[in-house]
Amino acid sequence: MSLLLAFDDEAALAQRLAQAIGRQHAFVDRHHFPDGETRLRLPASLPAHVVLLRGLQQPNDKLTELMLAAAGARELGARRLTLVSPYLAYMRQDTAFTPGEVVSQRHVGRALAAWFDDVVTVDPHLHRVATMDEVVPGRRAVALTAAPLLGAWVAQRLPDALLLGPDQESLQWVRAAAAAHGLDHAVCSKKRRADRAVEVELPNGVDLRGRAVVLLDDVASTGSTLVEAARGALARGAATVDVAVTHALLVGDALEQLRAAGVREVWSTDSVPHPSNVVSIAPLVAQALSSIAPGT
Amino acid sequence: MSLLLAFDDEAALAQRLAQAIGRQHAFVDRHHFPDGETRLRLPASLPAHVVLLRGLQQPNDKLTELMLAAAGARELGARRLTLVSPYLAYMRQDTAFTPGEVVSQRHVGRALAAWFDDVVTVDPHLHRVATMDEVVPGRRAVALTAAPLLGAWVAQRLPDALLLGPDQESLQWVRAAAAAHGLDHAVCSKKRRADRAVEVELPNGVDLRGRAVVLLDDVASTGSTLVEAARGALARGAATVDVAVTHALLVGDALEQLRAAGVREVWSTDSVPHPSNVVSIAPLVAQALSSIAPGT
Repeated sequence: MSLLLAFDDEAALAQRLAQAIGRQHAFVDRHHFPDGETRLRLPASLPAHVVLLRGLQQPNDKLTELMLAAAGARELGARRLTLVSPYLAYMRQDTAFTPGEVVSQRHVGRALAAWFDDVVTVDPHLHRVATMDEVVPGRRAVALTAAPLLGAWVAQRLPDALLLGPDQESLQWVRAAAAAHGLDHAVCSKKRRADRAVEVELPNGVDLRGRAVVLLDDVASTGSTLVEAARGALARGAATVDVAVTHALLVGDALEQLRAAGVREVWSTDSVPHPSNVVSIAPLVAQALSSIAPGT
Repeated sequence: MSLLLAFDDEAALAQRLAQAIGRQHAFVDRHHFPDGETRLRLPASLPAHVVLLRGLQQPNDKLTELMLAAAGARELGARRLTLVSPYLAYMRQDTAFTPGEVVSQRHVGRALAAWFDDVVTVDPHLHRVATMDEVVPGRRAVALTAAPLLGAWVAQRLPDALLLGPDQESLQWVRAAAAAHGLDHAVCSKKRRADRAVEVELPNGVDLRGRAVVLLDDVASTGSTLVEAARGALARGAATVDVAVTHALLVGDALEQLRAAGVREVWSTDSVPHPSNVVSIAPLVAQALSSIAPGT
C-alpha cells in the first residue's frame, strides 16, 4: 500500500490527491534553523512505494530539500519513489543561449532521475527537448496536460469565448483546451526583450470586437506577456478579457498588473497554490498514478 | 594550468586565494529570474582542472547552484573538479536524533562526492562522524583548521589572553589555537534547550579575575552560546571578553547581542565574508591545494 508524502505548504492539493487515489497522506516535518539549514523528518517507517508531492515553484531551496527527502525516504524503507511535481522548474533552460551557459534543464532532469523512479508533472514548458522521457533519462516520466480541464471550465462559464494564446508556444495548450468544446481559438506572436519586457502582436484576421476573450497559457510568471496581450485584445474591441493558466506563479505584483491592464478574472489549476485556483489537477494526477503504479 | 572559479559574493577571498595559488580566477555569472530560477554562465572553455570556491553558509539555494555549476563545468571541459568550501553546512546533522529524521550530513556529503573529485574545507563541525573522508565517501577530502591562525592573531594582541571554549566540543580548536603560543585555555560545558536557548557552565577552578578572556570556537551562528559564556566570564571577573571564531555566520542580530553581553571585539577568518574578518584562510587553503594537486 503506497503512501502519499507531501509538504505542508501544499496541504490542499495533498488532501485532494490522497482522496483521489484512495491512499493515506502524511507531511514531511520541516524545521528551519537560523543558519539556513533545514531538518526534515519523515514517517519513521515507510511502505515500499512512496509518492512524493512537490511542486518546484521558486525551485532552488526546494531542490535541496527534495534531494534530502528522497535520500531519507530510501533509508526509511521506500524502494520505489514516485515524484509528483505539478510544476516543474528549469524546463525553459534547455540550451546554452550564449557560450558557457549551464543547460539547467538537463542537470535538473538528471538529478530527478537519480533521486526518483518515476516523475509525473503537468504542462511542463518543453521546447527544444520534446518529451519528459528525454528530460528524466532512464526513468518513467509522465507529462499531463490540464488544458482540457481549463477549456471545460471556460466553456461552462463563457460558451462563446475566444481562447487566445499570448504566443506561438501556447498553441499546443490553446488547441487542447478549445478542442473538446469547439471554442474559437487563436494565438499571438511574441518578442521578449528582457525578463519583464515583451512585445505581443495580435493575430491578424481575427475579429475580437464584442468577444469574451480568455487568454490561456501554461504558466503566468511576471504576467508581462499576458498584460500586453490583454491590452491588445481590449484595444481591438474585446468585450471582456479573462485569464486561464495551469500554473499561477504570479510573482510579485503580477496579479495587480493584470487587473490594471483590464483583466477581469484569473483562473488557474491548483498545481501551484494560489487564490486563483479553481480547477483541481488531482483527478488527472490520480489517473496517471493508477496507470503507472496499478494497485500499489 | 588550473583555474579558480568563484561566485561574486565571495570576491575578496577568491582574489586572495588566486594570488596565493598563483592562478587566474573567474566568476560564475549568475542571473536570477523573477520565478526563482537561476541562470549560471561559466567561462566558455575550461581547463582540465577547475577549483570551485563556494562556502555553504545559508546552504539550500547554494547547493542547487553548486550542482548546476559542477555539472556545467564538466560539460565545458573540466575533468577534475576540486571544491573549496571554506564553510561546509549540514555537518551537525550526523545522526537521526528522533526516528524518521533525515541524516542530512550523509546525503549532502554523498552529493558533494557525486559532483566533485576533491573537497577542501576549514574547521568542519564533525562530531559522530570523525573524518571528512567518511563524509565525502570515495573522494579525497581535506579538513583544515584555522585555529592556529586565530591563536596567533590573539597572541599578538593579547599575549596573556585566556582562550575559553564555550562548550566541550570546542576543546579541539581551543587546544590547537593555544598550543603554538602557550596561551592558557579552558572550556565551558553547555546544555542546549532550543535553537536559541542555551545554558553555559563555566569551568571550575579557573580564575578569570582580571584576565583578558577570548572566547574561541569554530562557528558563531546565532551567537547565543557565546553570549552566555561572555556574561558568565564577566560575572566571574574577566577584565575583557573578545570573540575569535573561524566562521562568522552571525545570523540576524547576533553581533548586537554579543556587544550587549559585553563582548569587546569579534575576530574571524574570511571563510565566511563578514566585517569581522581579520585573518585570511587563503594561505592555508593554497597549501592544501598544492599538496593535493601539485603543479596543476
